[in-house]
Amino acid sequence: MPLKIASSQTASLTYAPYMALADVIQGFIERGPFRSGEKIPSVREMARQRKLSPTTVAKAYRLLENRGQIEARPQSGFYVRPQLRSEQLEPRVLSTVREASYVGVSDLAARVMTLSAQPSFVSFASGHPDATLFPNKKLAGLLSAIVRNEPMLMSRHALNWGYEPLTTEIARRYLRWGVGFSQDQVVITFGCTEALNLSLRVITQPGDTVALESPAFNGVLQIIQSLGLKALEIPTDPRDGIRLDLLREALLHKKASAVVLMPSFQNPLGANMPDANKEKLYSLLEEFDVPAVEDDVYGDLPFDDQRPKPLKAWDTSGRVLLCSSFGKTLAPGLRIGWSVPGRYLEPLRRLKLANTMGTPVVLQKAVCEFLRTGGYDHHLRSVRRHHKRQVGRFSQSVQQYFPAGTRMNRPRGGYILWVELPGQVDSEQLHAEATRLRINFAPGSLFSVRNGYRNCLRLNCSTPWNEKTQTALQRLGEISGTLARMKG
Amino acid sequence: MPLKIASSQTASLTYAPYMALADVIQGFIERGPFRSGEKIPSVREMARQRKLSPTTVAKAYRLLENRGQIEARPQSGFYVRPQLRSEQLEPRVLSTVREASYVGVSDLAARVMTLSAQPSFVSFASGHPDATLFPNKKLAGLLSAIVRNEPMLMSRHALNWGYEPLTTEIARRYLRWGVGFSQDQVVITFGCTEALNLSLRVITQPGDTVALESPAFNGVLQIIQSLGLKALEIPTDPRDGIRLDLLREALLHKKASAVVLMPSFQNPLGANMPDANKEKLYSLLEEFDVPAVEDDVYGDLPFDDQRPKPLKAWDTSGRVLLCSSFGKTLAPGLRIGWSVPGRYLEPLRRLKLANTMGTPVVLQKAVCEFLRTGGYDHHLRSVRRHHKRQVGRFSQSVQQYFPAGTRMNRPRGGYILWVELPGQVDSEQLHAEATRLRINFAPGSLFSVRNGYRNCLRLNCSTPWNEKTQTALQRLGEISGTLARMKG
Repeated sequence: MPLKIASSQTASLTYAPYMALADVIQGFIERGPFRSGEKIPSVREMARQRKLSPTTVAKAYRLLENRGQIEARPQSGFYVRPQLRSEQLEPRVLSTVREASYVGVSDLAARVMTLSAQPSFVSFASGHPDATLFPNKKLAGLLSAIVRNEPMLMSRHALNWGYEPLTTEIARRYLRWGVGFSQDQVVITFGCTEALNLSLRVITQPGDTVALESPAFNGVLQIIQSLGLKALEIPTDPRDGIRLDLLREALLHKKASAVVLMPSFQNPLGANMPDANKEKLYSLLEEFDVPAVEDDVYGDLPFDDQRPKPLKAWDTSGRVLLCSSFGKTLAPGLRIGWSVPGRYLEPLRRLKLANTMGTPVVLQKAVCEFLRTGGYDHHLRSVRRHHKRQVGRFSQSVQQYFPAGTRMNRPRGGYILWVELPGQVDSEQLHAEATRLRINFAPGSLFSVRNGYRNCLRLNCSTPWNEKTQTALQRLGEISGTLARMKG
Repeated sequence: MPLKIASSQTASLTYAPYMALADVIQGFIERGPFRSGEKIPSVREMARQRKLSPTTVAKAYRLLENRGQIEARPQSGFYVRPQLRSEQLEPRVLSTVREASYVGVSDLAARVMTLSAQPSFVSFASGHPDATLFPNKKLAGLLSAIVRNEPMLMSRHALNWGYEPLTTEIARRYLRWGVGFSQDQVVITFGCTEALNLSLRVITQPGDTVALESPAFNGVLQIIQSLGLKALEIPTDPRDGIRLDLLREALLHKKASAVVLMPSFQNPLGANMPDANKEKLYSLLEEFDVPAVEDDVYGDLPFDDQRPKPLKAWDTSGRVLLCSSFGKTLAPGLRIGWSVPGRYLEPLRRLKLANTMGTPVVLQKAVCEFLRTGGYDHHLRSVRRHHKRQVGRFSQSVQQYFPAGTRMNRPRGGYILWVELPGQVDSEQLHAEATRLRINFAPGSLFSVRNGYRNCLRLNCSTPWNEKTQTALQRLGEISGTLARMKG
């Protein structure tokens, strides 16, 4: 349905005509009249309508393609790419800071986790990518060669907190994103989980209050509970991350003595703090002399190959304890994570010894060889594309099958969708119904201190895309609809 | 130097004449006049002297050989085996219960540990057997085959707290020693260290007091410190283990709300509680309604192939949290341990998830295959013989080279010697001197809450026996002598 564009619409713009044209067309896509999946005028037709050269139009179309707004279909022309609905449909989060509270993790968490290991279930519940997305064969080959060549490593008791060639590789990688530290600042841990544990333990005492994002990563809530800490939930913007004004307020009134957060592709909201916010956040930490634990575990998974800078890049005083792992990108089964704890290095090393001693050298070496032989970046590019495609597919399905009034986030990295169901639909009830159909997901209540986000759910979009998956999403949407109508 | 034995010495005994004769001769060996390494009368000569039949004497000699008191040398006759000096020379331990105290682990612990990884050092400091004593090649072969056949296991996120075939093997082994539990009672952990951590955490709150042996395993002191617990040191007999009278007193006055101990071949004393004591200990736990963490990590290493029954064998109410690992017998580098936490199963499982999530399936499977293919018991028999021989060699060297007044334990399992230096010799000073000669060991002060056992040291006897090792022991003895004379 070709459309005429009045020339006045771009007349006042001072930037290049093709950019102006692209913005106009993007406006038509976002607010109409161009609709999702429809054909737009050909380059020649648009040039004629707009009185522009075909070269200018072609450049505008290329820009729009790059932005993911339109797509060329061979022998047919240009089409509006199926789009997600725009901002007003993003999920709502806690809008005020409530009192800090001890965490009461429900039995539901254990139940959801157990079900996610059931092969007969279609599960969207796990926080880990699907097992088929890892370079298992290559890693297995490396590990196999390592232990056959050096069997003594099997009994080598991993002292000194890390296999030096691996900690060196980790330090090298961070240097690319503007974070400088030497290899001996890295403590290898059993996954990011142990790194978060040790990091929180060196900066807190039981009874202390830790500020975190709301909704929060369910794992960190469990850790906080297990350590006898209180959680102070700070409202978090689905795009820009933790609300700095509210965090500032909390720190000003000494409501929290430490912060734990996920500045890059936060789980479950997908929020990715702009650099300016990270800089401001670091200033807050300085101003109130507070340490922060940074969970960077999704940092390597942007959709656009623009790896966000970790908060640690701004850290000049060693108050950011950077934590991460290879569990989301390389091998969740090997449990290789790390902490770069800044000024807390010595106490964290001691705590590592007391908690689990060393981490197997054979596994560290296998991961290190993978990083060294250069396959990691290639692998990352491929899984990023995959995740982006999958998140797109899942988003479409939610739009298509879930009841009117459903909201969801629009992540720019990771593989997780956060969905807000309309009205008073209770996702725990939805979960109970879904498990009867052998469908599993993470109910929203797992992501807050107590029973918040009950009408939300988290979907892991890395589940392989096939009819079974689509049907499961469709049925989930249908049950949500039924529940919404019952409540309505 | 053959000796006459007066016939009156055995006349009043009612047991078999050969047993009586053996006891008399053993008395001569222990208290003189027979001396270590000397020839004793031939069977014929002894029969003549004692007016007994040569058959009786031969039976007595065989009994003494079995007791390890004498040895036959081909074409030469019978000799007194080089013996350790007798009981009065066992090390002394804390004799009273002092106030419970927070643990202050010194920097020394980290220093000792770091030095034990230095290849240029002769180190007697580690708590682990020498790396050459493990079936590294066989395990490496198993691991290699597993990952090549099932590369997907690399990414398998180890849920459900344990790889079931492994937990089944563990449950089966304990059944042999009278401990019955099903495989789903077992939580696989990262070494015994994590098992002890989780177990202590589910039964205590920070600030609580835990009763333990004195001297105590240094690792558990570090854990207690890291958890903000207090330690109540209970004097421990070098042979029979923790003093039950004093433990009872402490529990009666509510001085401790939990117990952590190592009933079998305690580190560092080598004490092995008789079954009767274990039974009494369990009654105490029942009487005062107190849970106990049992560290059974040396249980598989008796010198005489009599595997001690774990305390857990008496546990009818689920109050014993059994902890162990394959780190002392199979592969310290793989970090595969377990807890069987009885009535604390659910909270311990949750804590495991919060602390480190799962444990790599590939490593669990490799260990499981080793247990299943039947090599484990054979391997155990061989390392037990080795440890016994090594502890004998080390004991001889301590007797030979250390100054008069040195005491030491006489373990019947494990591979650890506990040595008490005479007078006021400070083992930290000895350590400082020894490290100049590139010799490392664990000073006694690491095994108590604060600065106790300063004149003691722990030696790991699994260090391969060669000239370098012998020389190191000789020099350690010589420096001790020098320090003793300086103080004296």
